Amino acid sequence: MSAIKKVVLAYSGGLDTSAIVPWLKENYDCEVVAFVADVGQGAEELEGVEEKAIDSGASECYVVDLKEQMVAEYIYPTLKTGCVYEGTYLLGTSMARPIIAKAQVEIARKVGADALSHGCTGKGNDQVRFESCFAALAPDLKVIAPWREWHLSSRESLLDYLAQRDIPCAASATKIYSRDANAWHISHEGGELEDPWCQPSEQVWTMTQSPEQAPNEAELVTLTIQRGEVVAVNGEALSPYQCLVKLNDIAAVHGVGRVDIVENRLVGMKSRGCYETPGGTVMMAALQAIDELVLDKASRKWKDTFALEFAHLVYDGRWFTPLKDSILGAANAFAEHANGEVVVKLYKGQAIAVQKQSENSLYSEDFATFGEDDVYDQSHAEGFIRLFSLSSRIAALKK
Amino acid sequence: MSAIKKVVLAYSGGLDTSAIVPWLKENYDCEVVAFVADVGQGAEELEGVEEKAIDSGASECYVVDLKEQMVAEYIYPTLKTGCVYEGTYLLGTSMARPIIAKAQVEIARKVGADALSHGCTGKGNDQVRFESCFAALAPDLKVIAPWREWHLSSRESLLDYLAQRDIPCAASATKIYSRDANAWHISHEGGELEDPWCQPSEQVWTMTQSPEQAPNEAELVTLTIQRGEVVAVNGEALSPYQCLVKLNDIAAVHGVGRVDIVENRLVGMKSRGCYETPGGTVMMAALQAIDELVLDKASRKWKDTFALEFAHLVYDGRWFTPLKDSILGAANAFAEHANGEVVVKLYKGQAIAVQKQSENSLYSEDFATFGEDDVYDQSHAEGFIRLFSLSSRIAALKK
Amino acid sequence: MSAIKKVVLAYSGGLDTSAIVPWLKENYDCEVVAFVADVGQGAEELEGVEEKAIDSGASECYVVDLKEQMVAEYIYPTLKTGCVYEGTYLLGTSMARPIIAKAQVEIARKVGADALSHGCTGKGNDQVRFESCFAALAPDLKVIAPWREWHLSSRESLLDYLAQRDIPCAASATKIYSRDANAWHISHEGGELEDPWCQPSEQVWTMTQSPEQAPNEAELVTLTIQRGEVVAVNGEALSPYQCLVKLNDIAAVHGVGRVDIVENRLVGMKSRGCYETPGGTVMMAALQAIDELVLDKASRKWKDTFALEFAHLVYDGRWFTPLKDSILGAANAFAEHANGEVVVKLYKGQAIAVQKQSENSLYSEDFATFGEDDVYDQSHAEGFIRLFSLSSRIAALKK
Amino acid sequence: MSAIKKVVLAYSGGLDTSAIVPWLKENYDCEVVAFVADVGQGAEELEGVEEKAIDSGASECYVVDLKEQMVAEYIYPTLKTGCVYEGTYLLGTSMARPIIAKAQVEIARKVGADALSHGCTGKGNDQVRFESCFAALAPDLKVIAPWREWHLSSRESLLDYLAQRDIPCAASATKIYSRDANAWHISHEGGELEDPWCQPSEQVWTMTQSPEQAPNEAELVTLTIQRGEVVAVNGEALSPYQCLVKLNDIAAVHGVGRVDIVENRLVGMKSRGCYETPGGTVMMAALQAIDELVLDKASRKWKDTFALEFAHLVYDGRWFTPLKDSILGAANAFAEHANGEVVVKLYKGQAIAVQKQSENSLYSEDFATFGEDDVYDQSHAEGFIRLFSLSSRIAALKK
Repeated sequence: MSAIKKVVLAYSGGLDTSAIVPWLKENYDCEVVAFVADVGQGAEELEGVEEKAIDSGASECYVVDLKEQMVAEYIYPTLKTGCVYEGTYLLGTSMARPIIAKAQVEIARKVGADALSHGCTGKGNDQVRFESCFAALAPDLKVIAPWREWHLSSRESLLDYLAQRDIPCAASATKIYSRDANAWHISHEGGELEDPWCQPSEQVWTMTQSPEQAPNEAELVTLTIQRGEVVAVNGEALSPYQCLVKLNDIAAVHGVGRVDIVENRLVGMKSRGCYETPGGTVMMAALQAIDELVLDKASRKWKDTFALEFAHLVYDGRWFTPLKDSILGAANAFAEHANGEVVVKLYKGQAIAVQKQSENSLYSEDFATFGEDDVYDQSHAEGFIRLFSLSSRIAALKK
Repeated sequence: MSAIKKVVLAYSGGLDTSAIVPWLKENYDCEVVAFVADVGQGAEELEGVEEKAIDSGASECYVVDLKEQMVAEYIYPTLKTGCVYEGTYLLGTSMARPIIAKAQVEIARKVGADALSHGCTGKGNDQVRFESCFAALAPDLKVIAPWREWHLSSRESLLDYLAQRDIPCAASATKIYSRDANAWHISHEGGELEDPWCQPSEQVWTMTQSPEQAPNEAELVTLTIQRGEVVAVNGEALSPYQCLVKLNDIAAVHGVGRVDIVENRLVGMKSRGCYETPGGTVMMAALQAIDELVLDKASRKWKDTFALEFAHLVYDGRWFTPLKDSILGAANAFAEHANGEVVVKLYKGQAIAVQKQSENSLYSEDFATFGEDDVYDQSHAEGFIRLFSLSSRIAALKK
Repeated sequence: MSAIKKVVLAYSGGLDTSAIVPWLKENYDCEVVAFVADVGQGAEELEGVEEKAIDSGASECYVVDLKEQMVAEYIYPTLKTGCVYEGTYLLGTSMARPIIAKAQVEIARKVGADALSHGCTGKGNDQVRFESCFAALAPDLKVIAPWREWHLSSRESLLDYLAQRDIPCAASATKIYSRDANAWHISHEGGELEDPWCQPSEQVWTMTQSPEQAPNEAELVTLTIQRGEVVAVNGEALSPYQCLVKLNDIAAVHGVGRVDIVENRLVGMKSRGCYETPGGTVMMAALQAIDELVLDKASRKWKDTFALEFAHLVYDGRWFTPLKDSILGAANAFAEHANGEVVVKLYKGQAIAVQKQSENSLYSEDFATFGEDDVYDQSHAEGFIRLFSLSSRIAALKK
Repeated sequence: MSAIKKVVLAYSGGLDTSAIVPWLKENYDCEVVAFVADVGQGAEELEGVEEKAIDSGASECYVVDLKEQMVAEYIYPTLKTGCVYEGTYLLGTSMARPIIAKAQVEIARKVGADALSHGCTGKGNDQVRFESCFAALAPDLKVIAPWREWHLSSRESLLDYLAQRDIPCAASATKIYSRDANAWHISHEGGELEDPWCQPSEQVWTMTQSPEQAPNEAELVTLTIQRGEVVAVNGEALSPYQCLVKLNDIAAVHGVGRVDIVENRLVGMKSRGCYETPGGTVMMAALQAIDELVLDKASRKWKDTFALEFAHLVYDGRWFTPLKDSILGAANAFAEHANGEVVVKLYKGQAIAVQKQSENSLYSEDFATFGEDDVYDQSHAEGFIRLFSLSSRIAALKK
């Protein structure tokens, strides 16, 4: 195996990647460049992250702001497909991985690195997502996954490892939950959640208020949709990321966007996760409402077909593939029609579209009601029914 | 066209079918037998229905209790497919049509009728559902759809028609909403709902309490699932229909099961409908929770595929077709594994599965956590990732 | 119903549409403009067609050459989806209908017509295809379908009808088969074909030589594919229509492209049809061969999914719909990669791709063979297998 | 890793598995039991196989006749789904793997083995198929895959290995093609086939005559189908395996069943394979012909949907999974209707269904032709078309 000279590590400032920096240097005898992706995980997580990286032994630290790009180029396209993983999960962690991987590769090219590294564990999805993106974008770069190599297997051992090297780390020895946050969502695993018969305690949730403690008054929020994208909130035109932030703020108060599921990981096992996606849940409700108005029956069924496919693609980290381009091609054609306004009611954990309109609406009060019109002659129904059921009739007659 | 001697009418006791009885007699010079399907629409609607039918001119009136059979043979099988129409509609009206049509045909055979009639309008789905079932079950019987033939087009004209014939009718001249009820749900159309920009007023809803007025305390309800069917509620073994009734009672108090959508009718236009399905919503949440535990990734994706197909099949009234048998064949194979218990939390309009367990669960705390085990060696992940992403790698290398 | 002043008739010069001209004038008291679409049905059919139209009573006759446009804008896009109806039918009649309907509407706009008419019978697919396109392109124009209105039901009665009006017609009183031809194919129905137990006689086939009489020597033909389109034949760059004509000529000699099927018509019944698509069959073989090289496993499966959907869409005449745009969006993304050359062997009815290459090929002799390489370490397979089969292992262990 | 005491090896008598016997004994210090599956690979391959196994050092050799069971329980069920992998491959190798794996596990249980071994290479599909089946059937047994462990990488090195141990072996040092045979098919890889631009030479093919040398006279063969299974050939009732053997004999003469494709392996790379499936090709043609008669449009589309899913499942070796049960549940429901007779014409490489009939046929000459009948009133078509195209009309009117 060829020697590694310089590796770019996806660095978070947490305990794991803090230990990975010295571990890489010691085990690969290489320079380590830290790369921090700002995907909206919050100022707290990013505070002092460069200093931490250098303290851990990184030669450089690049913090790259990916927030607008992530929402505009990864989340919004995904929303156009209408996809939801296994009926419930809004793919918050999954959607962030490709853009992080891509930016990491760009830093690697910039600094002339010959390897990439990440802090994902060996039982999760993220290792597959990162490395599948690396395979597509930089098949020539070596990938180092310390969690699959080293023998450090607990927080205590990681803290010891750092202490032995005099590397400062504010992390505590105990941490109940494993969390991952970005502008779209936060996920929670571990602790009592490992038993699906155990209801999540209130301390699991960090982004939203509990429905029980949410206001007793409902709140209405208006989303403006253009070409399948949310472009304004309550009448205020905003960038994609700003729309998301604003909706997060509004919806979190009402306890909107919590889900608690057992899901199938790509690596063949099941895991239990709790997710909070407040603004995203509101966006999904609004986009679905516009679809109700503008998609005909066959189109809607087809959208449900490709949404299912896309959900698995995003979950599996297959972003940089021809399949992604193909399904987005299908979704974009429909998104052309998805213009309008939706009022979503937020109340005690729910986000319900209560008013919807679109210039491309196929709904017509005139046609749907029982009066007469030029478009639909009730006598047509008989012919329709006869032909629609003709094969059943023939089969029955032949018996 | 051959003369009709005796027609069996699907009779509800409402204004429309009360007028259809004399209209059929006058226009077809035939005997009219009334058939009333008890699908759980409620005692109020059935009270005195036989007398009303005779008063309207029917020669006989058969009231057939289909409640248990409907839940056991139509609703439960449909639930096993996991289907939801256009993402939201739980198919309450659709699932009732085939069993009503089948029982109506049986009455027709019993009384020696040569025709069938119904009170569905010419712009709706139900005419298609009824007549498609008739085509499959009794292609030899003529079908009469008065709404597609007569020129009575308002409640006033129907009331006049009855008054002229001295047929008593308690119906009022004005009725805002068109509703359809059975044990599973009630639907609402018309009135202000005809404008999708108009939020439904509280008077629309009749089966559930509003979330705002629901109790401030959440309630937990436990469902026992065997082979994909709810067999007990809070530990009490009950028949399918009894389970549904009990869950309706519990969930309605908490405002659970309201949906408000614009949907694609089979006949090519859109309509706006509000639906209340309290108990059904709880059942769906529980069944989905069991699926989370017992279906592997590929199975779950496949179930989502056939669920989509089945949703359209049920909506379209294609029950008595080989396609139905085929999809149920697929669903039943999975249902064999769907055993367990789920605790659903009801609160202010929401039904959320908060505890779930199954003897067939593929979830294992031992395997999912980060410790070591015999089943999963973290080093396996590298090989998996390499092959999983191999085509991406090759494509990238070839560029 | 509003009076018709001017109608544009899709006119073929055959017996049916020759009778429709006077019938429209007499029954609608309107001017009739004949519109003839040249879709490659052959010089013989077009010869003297304008004169015939005028002789029948048309006020004008427009012959529009649609050959290049049909292949480039309707057939080639369809080929990019890889679709085949019910496993066998290459959609020859179906693909021609939308472009004819569109050109007919354009003539109607040009001459200020207020109605459209066609000669399709009331039991076939083509009436649905034409009128669905009319609905999408010209919902304001009335559609007249004489075959669903008149009482002329045999060739004799049509000939009598014309004779009574002194309209010359060279059609014979007996015609065994009903045929439809364009540049892509010819279809045959009727006669002995109405019994699926009856083998087609040799006189059915008109476009291809029988395999038995084809040359005893195979012929190789080379197709050059760019972006999913055939752009050259045997090294000669040609327009889409010219490619098709040349391949028709070459393949017909070898008896390539005959199929004989019972298919499901859109109107609910089955029919038996024989089709000849010589050049198209060669194109399909070549395009499939390129796909073998350039599409990865998941992409190929997805293409098979949307191909199935598109086959039904084209067959059903739903061309001018958002669904068409969406599926073509999916197909076009893949077509970007479909470049290369394929040698197809023609022999006694068969067209088999025997040599294939592509600059975007994912096939690599180096990777596929058993030797060592950098891309694939055989030890990776163990990890892949362990995770690929993990859910089976867990399920088995849990039993 | 726990010590292995006794391993059951899937033994073929070829060079690879002959070397694996001593290699296992030396490297695992264990007893080796040879297991030979008779899946119809031919008497030549089985001749003396027990003696060879013992000569190689196996303590015992079990030869198990799986021929009837393979056709009845693996091939026929697969045929009922109508599946074909990537449009062309009839899954001959894939279908044999699960039954071999299952019988191998049974032998392991019988002899009290604690491990299983096979001779599949580390780049192929078969290792995944075998080991996925092992995972489902015997997760407790260890799996040894010598090709992923040892350093023997050529025929020469294997021959040397055997020679050093005085183990007799008749294998030659050079072998151009890698082949796999069973009753259903034979596959060929390697040699000049590694270049997809290279046409297969005639020496590739071993099971069928070349079309060029096939008889100049076509032959007709009649298949009787019951419940989706071929039960008689030319009127002679035969067992599933006998049907296949007889059809192989008949079709091979006519050069039927050769395919030459580049396919996507499950392990992420492409390979080029040539396959001969003479009898199977005839069976597929006949079963498709029956489907043409008995499946309505929606059913046929659905069958194409699950066929695609099943093709990948079989190819990927996911036989012992709930997904298999589910899709077979769907397929079996349709197979109930698949009765009838089909005459297939064999000529110069082609197998074409030229006559077909079924008691469950939905085709009716009376309904399909242009005359009048009770089932279909041509005036019904107008209503059908209006509603079928209604959403297009509304969309167009709204613009």
